[in-house]
Amino acid sequence: MSKIAKIAVLGASGYTGSECVRLLLRHPQVEIVLLTADRKAGQALREVFPQFSPFRLPKLVPLEGIDWPALGLDLVFCALPHATTQKVIKELLLRASHMKVVDLSADFRLADAAAYARWYGHEHHAPELQKEAVYGLVEIYREHIRRSRLVANPGCYTTCAQLPLVPLIKTGAIDVDEIVVDAKSGMTGAGRAAKENMLFSEVSEGFHAYGVGYHRHMAELDQEFSLAAGREVTVTFTPHLVPMNRGILSTIYVRGVGGRLPQDLHAILMETYRDELFVHVLPFGEMPHTRHVRGSNMTFIGVAADRIQGRAIIGSALDNLVKGASGQAVQNMNLMLGFPETMGLEQVALFP
Amino acid sequence: MSKIAKIAVLGASGYTGSECVRLLLRHPQVEIVLLTADRKAGQALREVFPQFSPFRLPKLVPLEGIDWPALGLDLVFCALPHATTQKVIKELLLRASHMKVVDLSADFRLADAAAYARWYGHEHHAPELQKEAVYGLVEIYREHIRRSRLVANPGCYTTCAQLPLVPLIKTGAIDVDEIVVDAKSGMTGAGRAAKENMLFSEVSEGFHAYGVGYHRHMAELDQEFSLAAGREVTVTFTPHLVPMNRGILSTIYVRGVGGRLPQDLHAILMETYRDELFVHVLPFGEMPHTRHVRGSNMTFIGVAADRIQGRAIIGSALDNLVKGASGQAVQNMNLMLGFPETMGLEQVALFP
Amino acid sequence: MSKIAKIAVLGASGYTGSECVRLLLRHPQVEIVLLTADRKAGQALREVFPQFSPFRLPKLVPLEGIDWPALGLDLVFCALPHATTQKVIKELLLRASHMKVVDLSADFRLADAAAYARWYGHEHHAPELQKEAVYGLVEIYREHIRRSRLVANPGCYTTCAQLPLVPLIKTGAIDVDEIVVDAKSGMTGAGRAAKENMLFSEVSEGFHAYGVGYHRHMAELDQEFSLAAGREVTVTFTPHLVPMNRGILSTIYVRGVGGRLPQDLHAILMETYRDELFVHVLPFGEMPHTRHVRGSNMTFIGVAADRIQGRAIIGSALDNLVKGASGQAVQNMNLMLGFPETMGLEQVALFP
Amino acid sequence: MSKIAKIAVLGASGYTGSECVRLLLRHPQVEIVLLTADRKAGQALREVFPQFSPFRLPKLVPLEGIDWPALGLDLVFCALPHATTQKVIKELLLRASHMKVVDLSADFRLADAAAYARWYGHEHHAPELQKEAVYGLVEIYREHIRRSRLVANPGCYTTCAQLPLVPLIKTGAIDVDEIVVDAKSGMTGAGRAAKENMLFSEVSEGFHAYGVGYHRHMAELDQEFSLAAGREVTVTFTPHLVPMNRGILSTIYVRGVGGRLPQDLHAILMETYRDELFVHVLPFGEMPHTRHVRGSNMTFIGVAADRIQGRAIIGSALDNLVKGASGQAVQNMNLMLGFPETMGLEQVALFP
Repeated sequence: MSKIAKIAVLGASGYTGSECVRLLLRHPQVEIVLLTADRKAGQALREVFPQFSPFRLPKLVPLEGIDWPALGLDLVFCALPHATTQKVIKELLLRASHMKVVDLSADFRLADAAAYARWYGHEHHAPELQKEAVYGLVEIYREHIRRSRLVANPGCYTTCAQLPLVPLIKTGAIDVDEIVVDAKSGMTGAGRAAKENMLFSEVSEGFHAYGVGYHRHMAELDQEFSLAAGREVTVTFTPHLVPMNRGILSTIYVRGVGGRLPQDLHAILMETYRDELFVHVLPFGEMPHTRHVRGSNMTFIGVAADRIQGRAIIGSALDNLVKGASGQAVQNMNLMLGFPETMGLEQVALFP
Repeated sequence: MSKIAKIAVLGASGYTGSECVRLLLRHPQVEIVLLTADRKAGQALREVFPQFSPFRLPKLVPLEGIDWPALGLDLVFCALPHATTQKVIKELLLRASHMKVVDLSADFRLADAAAYARWYGHEHHAPELQKEAVYGLVEIYREHIRRSRLVANPGCYTTCAQLPLVPLIKTGAIDVDEIVVDAKSGMTGAGRAAKENMLFSEVSEGFHAYGVGYHRHMAELDQEFSLAAGREVTVTFTPHLVPMNRGILSTIYVRGVGGRLPQDLHAILMETYRDELFVHVLPFGEMPHTRHVRGSNMTFIGVAADRIQGRAIIGSALDNLVKGASGQAVQNMNLMLGFPETMGLEQVALFP
Repeated sequence: MSKIAKIAVLGASGYTGSECVRLLLRHPQVEIVLLTADRKAGQALREVFPQFSPFRLPKLVPLEGIDWPALGLDLVFCALPHATTQKVIKELLLRASHMKVVDLSADFRLADAAAYARWYGHEHHAPELQKEAVYGLVEIYREHIRRSRLVANPGCYTTCAQLPLVPLIKTGAIDVDEIVVDAKSGMTGAGRAAKENMLFSEVSEGFHAYGVGYHRHMAELDQEFSLAAGREVTVTFTPHLVPMNRGILSTIYVRGVGGRLPQDLHAILMETYRDELFVHVLPFGEMPHTRHVRGSNMTFIGVAADRIQGRAIIGSALDNLVKGASGQAVQNMNLMLGFPETMGLEQVALFP
Repeated sequence: MSKIAKIAVLGASGYTGSECVRLLLRHPQVEIVLLTADRKAGQALREVFPQFSPFRLPKLVPLEGIDWPALGLDLVFCALPHATTQKVIKELLLRASHMKVVDLSADFRLADAAAYARWYGHEHHAPELQKEAVYGLVEIYREHIRRSRLVANPGCYTTCAQLPLVPLIKTGAIDVDEIVVDAKSGMTGAGRAAKENMLFSEVSEGFHAYGVGYHRHMAELDQEFSLAAGREVTVTFTPHLVPMNRGILSTIYVRGVGGRLPQDLHAILMETYRDELFVHVLPFGEMPHTRHVRGSNMTFIGVAADRIQGRAIIGSALDNLVKGASGQAVQNMNLMLGFPETMGLEQVALFP
C-alpha cells in the first residue's frame, strides 16, 4: 500500500490520543486528517499540548456533526472514555463501514457479553461488534489482527503481564493456581482527568497500592489466561502507583511444574520472542527497568530464580503509553493497513 | 532519670546518622556531645548537612584517638558501615563498659555465628557481643531491650515486613510456606555513598527490582520468622527501588490457614497493636501510603481480601529513616535509658 | 498564659489547613476544638488526610450553623479561599468579638482599599476590618501583631522576598528601581484544587514560568517595599513552578548604592537577623537550598557577589507551607496569645 | 552523499555519548563503527546503558591503541571530559586528517587562547586547532560549519541563552549592560560522574542555585555576546538545579532600547527564526515549558512584557541533551557531511 492513509484520532486531548499523534507525525505512510475532543473542541491541539506547536495539525472538533463518509478515512484511533466508546464506534461503522478502527478503551476487550456486564455494570451497547472485535495483543493475535476491521487494543497492565505469562501458561510450564502479579505503574496510566488524588503534591515522594482485590484489568487477565490454559484461571493482581510519568513494571511470582526450573521458563520466553522486534528477553538473572523502555514500543522481560526451590521471579517492563497503549495501537494499524509492522515505531528509548 | 544523658552519634555524615541528630535535637533529655565521621572529619556538621546550620553541635571528629572513658557517654548510636562496626563496638565497650550502644548496622542482627558467616562471607569479629546483643524490634522485644547494653537496630525492610507478619506467624494464622513479600523502598535506604546507580538521573522517572533472589535482609527475615514459627521459614522477598527519598511499602501475599479469613488476620493485628503508639492498623480494606508516615516513627498496616478465596493482601508502610532506622534507634534508647518510649518521637508525618 | 487555648482551623481539608493541624498537634498549649471543610464536611480528617489517622481530632463540619460564641474559641486559623474569607471573618468577629483570627488567605493583606479593588476586581466586603488587620510578617511587625485581633498572614512568595529585601531597602543600601526577583516554588503553593495543570503527569520532569508580568503577590510586594522605601517601588517578579512538593527559592538581583559592596549587604542582613530564631543568614557566598528548610519554620538567606561590579545575588529559601503559611500563622498565634514565639515550631528540617 | 557514513562516538558511556548513539541509531545515512569508553572499556554498551540491549552495536573499547586510519571514519563525535579532549583530537586529526570531528566538550569553544587559559587555568594543548575550530551554534554559524573539519559544539546553557539573545544584541534592540540570565537545568547537565551532591536523595524534592558569580559557561556567553554586540559584554548569569532529568529553562530579563517594546523584541525573534526548523518562537505572551521539548531537538522561545515599562521577560527552553548537546552535534554532522540538516532529528517531544 503506497498511498498515504487518512487517519483520525478521536479523543486527542487525552494522553493516549496525544501519544498516537506523536507517533503518527513520524509515520511516513499516514496523514492525520481529523482530531476530536470534547470539552476542548474548538482549540488547536497546540493549546492543549504545546509540544505540537511547531506542527501543522487539524483543529480539535467535537464528535457531533462529523460527516464520516465524506472524510474518506482509512482508520480511526478511538481514545475515548469507556462506555461512550461503544456507541461512537457503532455509529461510525454504520456510516462508514469500510473504515477500520483501533479502540484504545476497554469497551471491546472482553469477548464475553456476560463478563462485560458483570465487570462494567451494564449490558454492552454494541454486542455484535463485541463479537467481531479482535483482541489486539499483536505478538499473540497477529494474524487475526491483519484481517480484522475492529481491534480492541489491550490494557497497559494486561499487556505487561500477558507477554511473559501467556507463553508459560500455554506450554503448561507453570502452576496457574499460584500466580501473583505485583504491578507498578506511572501516573499517566490514570489519564488526564483532573482528580485530587492525581495532583503532583498527592503523588510525588510516596508510593501506595490501589484497587486491591478488585481492578477492571483483572477481567482481561482472566479472559486471556483462561484461554491460554484451556481452563479457568484467576490470578492475584495488585496495582501500585509509582511517582513517575511513564512505565509499568510487573513483578510476577510463579512456580514451575513438571520439574521445570526458572532457567527453563527463561528458555521458553527466549524461544517465543526470538524474532519479535518489540519484545526483548534479557539474559537469565537480569531484571528490567521501566526507564530503559521509556518512549519506545519495547517490552523488556527478565527471569530470575527465587531462592525457594522451583519458584521463579519474572520482571516485565514497558511504557504504558507506548506498548501499553498508543504504540501497540499503531502496531495494530500497521498490520491492518498492510504497512511494515515496525513503521513509525522505531524510536529508541529515552534514557536518562 | 531526670539528668540529661550524654549521647554520641558515630557516622554522623550519613543519612541514618543525621536522622539521629535531627531527632535527638528535639529530645528534651539528651545532649549530643560527640559526632564522628570518616572522610569528612574536621568539618562542621553544617558543612555536610546544611539543615543543621542554625544549631550548635560538636564538630565531626575521626573515630581514632577518642578518649571514650573521659567523655562520660551514656549511650552511643553507631551508624557506621557493616563489618567495621563490630570492631569499633568491641573496642568501645572494652574501654567504657558502662556505656550503652544502639547499633544501626547489620553487624549484630544475626544471633547465629554460622548464619552470619554464610551471609557476610567472614567470621564475626566480636562473637561474644553477637551473643549479648538484643534484636531491637521494640514492639516484639521491648522487655529484653530495657535490660540490654547492646541493641541491634533492625533493618528497614525487615521492620516493615515483621511488624505485620510476626503476629500472624506466631498465632499460626497463615501458611508460612507461601509468603511473598514484594517490597518497595525509597532511595535513602541505599545510603549516601556516591555510586553511579544512585545518581538522580539514573533513579528518577523509573522503577526496577534489585537483589532478586538474594538480599542480605533475607537473613534477618529468616531468623525472626523461624523464631516466630518455631521451625525454619523461608519467604520470597523482592526489593524494588522507588524514585522517592523516604518510605518503604511492603505488599505481602499470604494464605490464611484453619479457615481464617482476611478479616481474621486483620483482627489479630488490631488486637496485637491496640496499645502501640507507633504501629497503626488501618480499617479493614484500607491500604497504607508511604507518604502518610513520612518523617514520623509510625508504621501503617492495612489488610485486604484477595479475590482468591482464603488469600489476603497486606500492606505495611514506614519511613525507612525513622521507624526503619533512626526513629526506632531513639525508641530503643528511650527504653535503655528509662525515658518514656515516645520521647522525641512525637513528630506528625509531613504530608504533602 | 498557662491555660490551654481553644483553637479552630477553618478549611482543614486544604494543605495550609492540614499543615496548621500538623503543627498544632505538637503545640503543648493548644487544643483543636473545631475543624471545618466545605465539600468534605461530614468526613473525619483522617479520610481526607490519612496521616492523621492515629490522632483523635474533631470531625470536619461545615461553616454554616456553627455557634461561634458557644465554642469559647481563643483563636481561629482561617485557611479558606480568597474572597469568601472576608465575609466569614466579618461574621465571625461580629458574633464572637473577643476571638482572635489569623487569616491565611490574601483577603486582608492589602491595607489600601483601592489597591485591593484594583488587584482583586471587586470592592472589599469588610473594609473596616481591612483597616484593623495587621500584616503578619513577624520579624518586621512583631509588636503590632502582639496587640492585634486580626492578623493577615503574608503570602509565601512575599515572605521569601521580603525577609532579605526589606532590611536592605529600609537602610537605603540598594537601588530600588533595579530589583529582579526570580522566584521558584514547589507545587503545594498552588493548593489542593483538582486542576489539569496541577496533575503529577503535567508537572513532573519539567519546569516553567507562569503569571509572567502579572501575579497577585506583586500587590503585596509593592505595598511592603514601598512602605520600606518611603516611596513607590515596583519590582520585576517572575514565579516558576518546580517539580517538588515544598519549598520556595527566590533568586534576587540587586545593585548596591553608595558604594556598598555585596559584603555590606550581607553584613546588614547578618545584623538584622542576629537574634531571630527563624531567619538564618548563611556565611557570605553560600547559597540556600529549599531542601534544608523543608518542614521547618526556617528561612535561609545567602548573599553572593555577582561578577558585575556592584551587583549582588541574594538567595532566600523557605518552606512555603511552614514559614510561608502555617508555620508563620502559628508564630503569629504565639504572639497574639502570649506564648513563647517558637512554641510548637521547633521541628528540624527534614532532609533528605 | 548516498553512501553510509562511518561514525565513532568517543566517550559512549556518558550521557551525551549515549544520546548520540540514540539519535544515530535512527539516522538512515550513518553506521556506528566505533564506541569508546575509559573505565568501562571491554563491556558491551548494553551493560552500561541497558536501553540499547535490543540493538547490535560495537563493544566499548579504550581510546588507546585504536588504529584510526584503518577504521576509515568519516566523522567522530568526541564526548570526552574537558582537557583530555584537546590531546585526543590533536592526535586523531594528525593520524587521520581527512576525518571530521564534532567535539561536545568545552575545549574548543573559546577562540581566544588567553580567555581559555584564564577560565581553564592552563594553556591550550592544541592552539592551532583552537583557531581552526568553528563554534557550532547552527542557526548562527551554519555556513562556517558546512566547510569546517572541527566543530566545537556549544554548551547547553549557552545555546539556550544565545538563541534568543544574539539576534536582539545584533540588532541593537536591547541594553547589553542590563541582561540578567536566570537559568535552571535538569540533572543530566551534570553528567554521569558519581558524586555525592548528584545522588537522587540529595537532588530530589529541592531546588538551589550553584556556581553563583562564577561558572565556566560565562566565558562562552561573553565571547558570543561580545561578538554580536561588537564590544565587550558581560551578563549576569545564575545557574540552578531542577529535580528533573532533562531540560533547561532560561528566564532572561532585558530592557529594550530606542523605544523598543517587548512586542518589538518578539517580532525580531519571529523574523529571525521564521524558517528555522529547530527554533520555535511562541505567540507573544506565552512562555515555554521544558517538558514540551523533552527528547526533541527543538528550542521554544517566549517573550512577555514585564509590568515595568520598557522591560521584557524572555523564556527559552530546550533539552540539554539534545539541542543542548547531542542533537545539535548531529545537526552539525549533517551539515558537515552534506546530509539534510534535520535527518535523524525528527523526534517529536515526549510529553508527558
